Amino acid sequence: MELWFLGTSAGMPIRDRNVTSIALTQNDGTFWMFDCGEGSQHRLLQTPLKLTKLTKIWITHLHGDHVFGLPGLLSSRSSLGGTEALQLYGPPGLRELLETSLRISETHLNYPIHITEIEAEGAIFEDANVKVEAAKLDHRIESYGYRIEERERPGVLNAGWLAEQGLPPGPVYGQLKAGQDVTLADGRVIRSVDAVGESLPGRIVTILGDTRPCANAVKLGRGANVLVHEATFAHALADKAHEYGHSTALQAAQIAHEAGARRLLMTHFSSRYTREALAELETEARQVFADADAAIELTPYPIPL
Amino acid sequence: MELWFLGTSAGMPIRDRNVTSIALTQNDGTFWMFDCGEGSQHRLLQTPLKLTKLTKIWITHLHGDHVFGLPGLLSSRSSLGGTEALQLYGPPGLRELLETSLRISETHLNYPIHITEIEAEGAIFEDANVKVEAAKLDHRIESYGYRIEERERPGVLNAGWLAEQGLPPGPVYGQLKAGQDVTLADGRVIRSVDAVGESLPGRIVTILGDTRPCANAVKLGRGANVLVHEATFAHALADKAHEYGHSTALQAAQIAHEAGARRLLMTHFSSRYTREALAELETEARQVFADADAAIELTPYPIPL
Repeated sequence: MELWFLGTSAGMPIRDRNVTSIALTQNDGTFWMFDCGEGSQHRLLQTPLKLTKLTKIWITHLHGDHVFGLPGLLSSRSSLGGTEALQLYGPPGLRELLETSLRISETHLNYPIHITEIEAEGAIFEDANVKVEAAKLDHRIESYGYRIEERERPGVLNAGWLAEQGLPPGPVYGQLKAGQDVTLADGRVIRSVDAVGESLPGRIVTILGDTRPCANAVKLGRGANVLVHEATFAHALADKAHEYGHSTALQAAQIAHEAGARRLLMTHFSSRYTREALAELETEARQVFADADAAIELTPYPIPL
Repeated sequence: MELWFLGTSAGMPIRDRNVTSIALTQNDGTFWMFDCGEGSQHRLLQTPLKLTKLTKIWITHLHGDHVFGLPGLLSSRSSLGGTEALQLYGPPGLRELLETSLRISETHLNYPIHITEIEAEGAIFEDANVKVEAAKLDHRIESYGYRIEERERPGVLNAGWLAEQGLPPGPVYGQLKAGQDVTLADGRVIRSVDAVGESLPGRIVTILGDTRPCANAVKLGRGANVLVHEATFAHALADKAHEYGHSTALQAAQIAHEAGARRLLMTHFSSRYTREALAELETEARQVFADADAAIELTPYPIPL
């Protein structure tokens, strides 16, 4: 899994920052997006990510700087040959926004879209690889955070040891990795537990929508390998942050600290901050949480164990 | 008046071309836009044009690549301090598209918007400086072209001759330019007709939405100083152009020729054409109309007399 920030600007784009969108690559070569501000499809063109590999979009809230890129991106995914179903999650209103835009513009998609409007907090998606939980945050409009928990993964095959046993790579490697013991032609039994290393623990990525500091931010971020939290303002503007339903860099760091997260990536910066000023937001945050960075657009952030 | 192409790509953005939008600067320092594909506000950030100076937006048709940038651009105009009313013109459906997007995203504008949905062809706007006429084109969806006729403007003041008469610059220069004769303190009369050169003829700019070649394109483009016509395909793909309601570069040139336009600027190029391939579209067009160019984005095109 890898995070790509497609936009880190709050409210409107500026010359070197776009409005909010984040891509999260999956272990199977597909990727998900979290929010889709205007111009997100343009930003994707500057990454290795291909729209046809996008399978799910999670919307945190319906403010324009988080959703106005949706209809165009859906249209381009079709033009580029996407035929697989696309699943969208977000607050109520998402369906009307999308269906109205697609109907009036006579946009015909060559794939089905499934829209889930979130009605209750809790687990909203799970499959063999991952579980996603949503909870309400504290903003001027209904806003959600998402906690993505990867399941425990099989350990790494010990190829060197297998070679010593005289077992060349082949389908049996897959059987061993899947937990099956294998009997060789000479009668020897190779046990899966000997061939495969320790299971890899699942990683946790928490991506929050716009919010004031709140208990659900801590809850969703509990023990996260990476917590993505907005930091619209420096703490000198804490009153303004509160008035507009946002957080300061210091507050984002306090949430990361309380949650026991491993790493904090801050985003959603007011357009008043130049790239240089973002370094000051980092300094502010690191007073209470050392591993805090202002996210840089179009740079991959791997999710460490 | 000056044209800026903010996007020249058909259907979807590619790395070096955005979807359709054109800015037309006015003599009073304001500007108008024609269409507003996703990312148009981002393109404006790369020009000297300021969103607060935008007074009118003319939409040719409601396909997404011509309108999905509207809600975000309107929102940013407000955030950037725009308080003057904004007038929008376009086909029926424009109001619902905009009002739904603004309502669901809870976007509150600090200025009034006035939306005129075009109901009949003909003159749809005029003031002291300009007259705008709309007519239906031939596309898969209701699509309009706009003919902007500048009124005759006062000639240039002959400052050298006025200095010879001993008349220094001052408010009387304005009176003379406005057509009034002026009596000096010594009793001499300076006649406006002597002080002001020939009136400048108004210029004509015609901007057409997506269309197959059609009679109304010729009618709107009659004698235009600049005709902006789509050229989605090279003529080798004339069948495809017809099927999708578009024109080829050769057809655009034929329209410019029939209309007796002075200059043709082509836009709305299929994403299949590289920048180099656009030179071939120009070669094709110039076979029948010499002054034809493929519009380049983010470059000002003055409107010659």
